[in-house]
Amino acid sequence: MMKQNRVDRVMAALKDMGLSQMLIVDPMSIYYLTGVYVAPFERFYGLYLREDGKHVYFLNRLFHVPEDVGIEKVWYSDTDPAAELVAERLDHNSPLGVDKDLRAAFLLPLMEKKAASGFVNASIAIDRTRGVKDAEEQELMRAASRINDQAMEKFKELIHEGVTEKEAADQMLKIYQDLGADGYSFEPLVAFGANAADPHHMPDDTAVKPGDCVLFDVGCLKDGYCSDMTRTFYFKEVSEGRRRIYETVRSANEAAIAKIRPGVPLSELDGTARNLIAKEGYGDYFTHRLGHFIGLSEHEYGDVSSASDWKAEPGMIFSIEPGIYLPGDTGVRVEDLVLVTEDGCEVLNHYPKTLEVIG
Amino acid sequence: MMKQNRVDRVMAALKDMGLSQMLIVDPMSIYYLTGVYVAPFERFYGLYLREDGKHVYFLNRLFHVPEDVGIEKVWYSDTDPAAELVAERLDHNSPLGVDKDLRAAFLLPLMEKKAASGFVNASIAIDRTRGVKDAEEQELMRAASRINDQAMEKFKELIHEGVTEKEAADQMLKIYQDLGADGYSFEPLVAFGANAADPHHMPDDTAVKPGDCVLFDVGCLKDGYCSDMTRTFYFKEVSEGRRRIYETVRSANEAAIAKIRPGVPLSELDGTARNLIAKEGYGDYFTHRLGHFIGLSEHEYGDVSSASDWKAEPGMIFSIEPGIYLPGDTGVRVEDLVLVTEDGCEVLNHYPKTLEVIG
Repeated sequence: MMKQNRVDRVMAALKDMGLSQMLIVDPMSIYYLTGVYVAPFERFYGLYLREDGKHVYFLNRLFHVPEDVGIEKVWYSDTDPAAELVAERLDHNSPLGVDKDLRAAFLLPLMEKKAASGFVNASIAIDRTRGVKDAEEQELMRAASRINDQAMEKFKELIHEGVTEKEAADQMLKIYQDLGADGYSFEPLVAFGANAADPHHMPDDTAVKPGDCVLFDVGCLKDGYCSDMTRTFYFKEVSEGRRRIYETVRSANEAAIAKIRPGVPLSELDGTARNLIAKEGYGDYFTHRLGHFIGLSEHEYGDVSSASDWKAEPGMIFSIEPGIYLPGDTGVRVEDLVLVTEDGCEVLNHYPKTLEVIG
Repeated sequence: MMKQNRVDRVMAALKDMGLSQMLIVDPMSIYYLTGVYVAPFERFYGLYLREDGKHVYFLNRLFHVPEDVGIEKVWYSDTDPAAELVAERLDHNSPLGVDKDLRAAFLLPLMEKKAASGFVNASIAIDRTRGVKDAEEQELMRAASRINDQAMEKFKELIHEGVTEKEAADQMLKIYQDLGADGYSFEPLVAFGANAADPHHMPDDTAVKPGDCVLFDVGCLKDGYCSDMTRTFYFKEVSEGRRRIYETVRSANEAAIAKIRPGVPLSELDGTARNLIAKEGYGDYFTHRLGHFIGLSEHEYGDVSSASDWKAEPGMIFSIEPGIYLPGDTGVRVEDLVLVTEDGCEVLNHYPKTLEVIG
């Protein structure tokens, strides 16, 4: 059934943009608004929202959805011209807000048919709404991160002399499942030593060696919502230089978190962490934004970066994940999810951040 | 390094469309042309092809690519306006071919900046090229399907009294890995009994019962290429009605395959299978197209359906997968991958299609 509260928030945001209609195609956004999830693969799947409440749900006959979604359904087959069916239903005399993910294959034909008086990327209306979690979502996000905390305890135990990144990673799904998760929110990143200097390194056949960092960037899915946490350990021993890097990253994480309260510009959080890292001499080695929004998807719209013009609002949930990546040497990242509250923030992860030497 | 042969085929296709430039964003298409794979998540990632050979590779600083791709690289950071960087490099006085997957978030700004004299969905240039596999790809596709054949033998053995779909599915990744696969090409579909009447049913806690169909729609990834095969078994026993359904589907699969040769319209293959199923009285229960193209991705552009206007060409690889889905009762699908040859086709799957009662 349509979640009317959420639809109302999106319609209000559209109105602020001067829009009366929008075509949403992100399956997660549609789930957010309807409670129905469909994996459309390459097929068209859309929710058309209208100011007058006469929303339309466009569905391929192969998709399975409940009877009672509460809005009109328009079904099409693989052999139907889906863009034409959609074009027919749009208000041709008003601009259409489109989802940022609408593909050129669909947008170009709508333009050709002059199916609306203009086409505007209106994703912000749904994305910003999704960025501020309601009470039901906050509870689900806490539950997913709770499992992630428990899982980290067990992931650490997978590391012993000779184990490879892949061997460790291959055991993670079962650990999550045993803890009640529904699966991964993303493929776990496990990186040892110099491999961790690539923030997106995927587990390979590298075996752990004494002195290596052991970086886990991991998350699970629970009831549709994602967790995401990074902890970096050292195996057997840690050099003074690497310890200093670790402490710098941890301080950056904690300094940024300490600043979170309603009204603080997200760019300021990024700046806090970045300045701290730069002051220690590692400015060139923190190569990514401080954080990202998260919820139904692992990466949702919204950055915690110098480019962000958003301010923190109660209900927002995002990651705080500073890192230092020294090519050929080591990589450290410490990441938590945080929920902005009325007077500060609630950190959703509770796994300790003090440097642990394991194995 | 750029695969010049493939780039040449794409440029020739663009020229036929009157285009001198194209922006490709599908990471698999970029891998196809460069041999480099990047998972860009929500970040922009693009390969700009130009008639004069001065191609440009647009990369976020977070992406890791080899030094020697052989074309100019333009790097951007999360805080850079990527669409502007791309717009600057385009030929503003010629139309731009765009990838069907280019997102509205990127296409709309390019249009606003008048970065080209027009915007055309030119995916067909790369997609049709990808649809006709070269010798290197054919060998890789054979290898992936060979593993799939071996795996089916083992999947069948997972089925015993009381096992659930999920329990069976959870053991498949290891079986594939033990056979040398790199992973799934898609999450395996395992469906028992009435669940199989949903062609996209995902494994759940349903336990198998005597008389149930046991449908496996499975594929693995090997060296970047996908396999995809469906076999339907019956558990312990099979009713006469269901046997008839099975034999109808198998005949439809074989009849379509028997027609494949260069020049045959793909819509005719769909028609052959569909007519045969309709003649047996199940026309309303074959609810999807006969097949899809496959290669680097599980579903590539190109349909074997009544809507297709393509003709078979040597080197094309696609699935032939008729099915009958009786809601609340049973579902049967028999799927093979086929490679069009000079005088017919090579079926890439060798697992038998005669009805097997297992357990």
